[in-house]
Amino acid sequence: MDGLASKPLWQEELKIAIGAATDAGNLIRSGFSVRSKDVEDKKNTSDLVTETDVKSEELVFSRIRTAFPSHVLIGEESSVSSGPDALTDEPTWMCDPLDGTTNFVHSYPNVCVSIALVVKKQVVVGVVYNPITEELFTATKGSGAFLNGRPIRCSGAQDMKRALLATEIGVTRDETTFHAVFLRISKLVQAMQSVRCTGSCALNLCSVASGRIDAFYEIGFGGCWDVAAGALIVSEAGGALIDPAGGPFGLMSRRVLAGTPAIVPQVSAILAACPTSEHEPPAPASS
Amino acid sequence: MDGLASKPLWQEELKIAIGAATDAGNLIRSGFSVRSKDVEDKKNTSDLVTETDVKSEELVFSRIRTAFPSHVLIGEESSVSSGPDALTDEPTWMCDPLDGTTNFVHSYPNVCVSIALVVKKQVVVGVVYNPITEELFTATKGSGAFLNGRPIRCSGAQDMKRALLATEIGVTRDETTFHAVFLRISKLVQAMQSVRCTGSCALNLCSVASGRIDAFYEIGFGGCWDVAAGALIVSEAGGALIDPAGGPFGLMSRRVLAGTPAIVPQVSAILAACPTSEHEPPAPASS
Repeated sequence: MDGLASKPLWQEELKIAIGAATDAGNLIRSGFSVRSKDVEDKKNTSDLVTETDVKSEELVFSRIRTAFPSHVLIGEESSVSSGPDALTDEPTWMCDPLDGTTNFVHSYPNVCVSIALVVKKQVVVGVVYNPITEELFTATKGSGAFLNGRPIRCSGAQDMKRALLATEIGVTRDETTFHAVFLRISKLVQAMQSVRCTGSCALNLCSVASGRIDAFYEIGFGGCWDVAAGALIVSEAGGALIDPAGGPFGLMSRRVLAGTPAIVPQVSAILAACPTSEHEPPAPASS
Repeated sequence: MDGLASKPLWQEELKIAIGAATDAGNLIRSGFSVRSKDVEDKKNTSDLVTETDVKSEELVFSRIRTAFPSHVLIGEESSVSSGPDALTDEPTWMCDPLDGTTNFVHSYPNVCVSIALVVKKQVVVGVVYNPITEELFTATKGSGAFLNGRPIRCSGAQDMKRALLATEIGVTRDETTFHAVFLRISKLVQAMQSVRCTGSCALNLCSVASGRIDAFYEIGFGGCWDVAAGALIVSEAGGALIDPAGGPFGLMSRRVLAGTPAIVPQVSAILAACPTSEHEPPAPASS
């Protein structure tokens, strides 16, 4: 508790992350309005990757390697492994160089760069930048969450009937998963005010953090890079994060439920009663 | 075919509509970030009206009455009748003073003012303004569609599997309607790339017109004020509008399917095979 301990931590790392996110955002913006983009299917026509995804990740990783040569990098486009074993206690950067690729392909203005630094398995820096709306969401552990430099807070919603939900249909189209996804959404919407689906996990988390949305959940998104930065931004904005089935949130689980502290357990009670498809990632075993 | 005939029509009406929409937009913007808004339920907690809805309509109607005292006005907040009998051949303004009221209440940045002039049952002027993103969509019959003064076009999408759908859950929560809504969405999403739900009928139509979305449908929205301006903007941007069941689009039917000319019949083929709830507006009788 000396003078040094009260100095905000992670400011150099935050600065590098913001610089990388805004420059990668410029790349995204310059390709955004082009109608015929060079698109490659990942697994099916619902899951796409573009030349911009690849270039954006190269830019972000190059910046981080230069500044922090010993740090581990996990990125959506280049990472060889994203399973639970990939995460160690080492400083690890998780980057989604273009979250909302389907939106990007359609010039639908809900796209972002998401960059997080994880140390000893805790997210300590989170940056999410939408270059089209020019919204920059930032957080460092213990120092609050910000939108373009101004502090943001979750909505404080308590009443499910008046709460706004965000979720996504996802990219899986097998019948069991599809049925599970729709059953969950219909059960929740029946109990809530309405639902918004806008195609970016990281931006959905930022919508929770800035009070636009009262709860967001998704099961089976791409990987830790979609959720790491947004998770810190939510918790620094006073929000709660748990596993959709009610246990602790797992950064590597590809499952998230975020929202106001009052709404999250109510959403989770409904989700826990719904079946999960065998093709979806299961709830982490409680330790 | 003399010189006068080629002069663009409806420019004075367009100017008044733009002035009213931007000033009403300023009202919306000034109330937008207030957390605890004075909200009144219309019928249930999913259907809301705020003080801003009322003030915005008063402003728009006052402007139109001053400029065109003999014209008929139909507005979401004050209109006594919105059934098919309400529309005559007289010049009639249709105004939604705040489309996306749920978004407004939650400070979710997808709200707009929608103003249309209908003459002899044809929309001739359409203006949709989102004061948060400062996007102004405009069209006059025969003269194209514009976003902030620049021409816009529909996407030209042909392939359902790569097409992006927009729709809404709506505000009706009875079991039959709810089941019908979810069945339609699941059938369509199974055949398409993904779905976006953002809570504004008028802005969904503008997303079709600007090529961000390839098709949008909704059955059972509030009234003609939600759809009139956007319908003209879509058609002037090269898009197609029909009834979701495949017949001609009816301005007063509270039903719309808009999209690229290639995608619209494919969406309609799927929708026509799905049941409609008795609580939803039926397809207009073909004449």
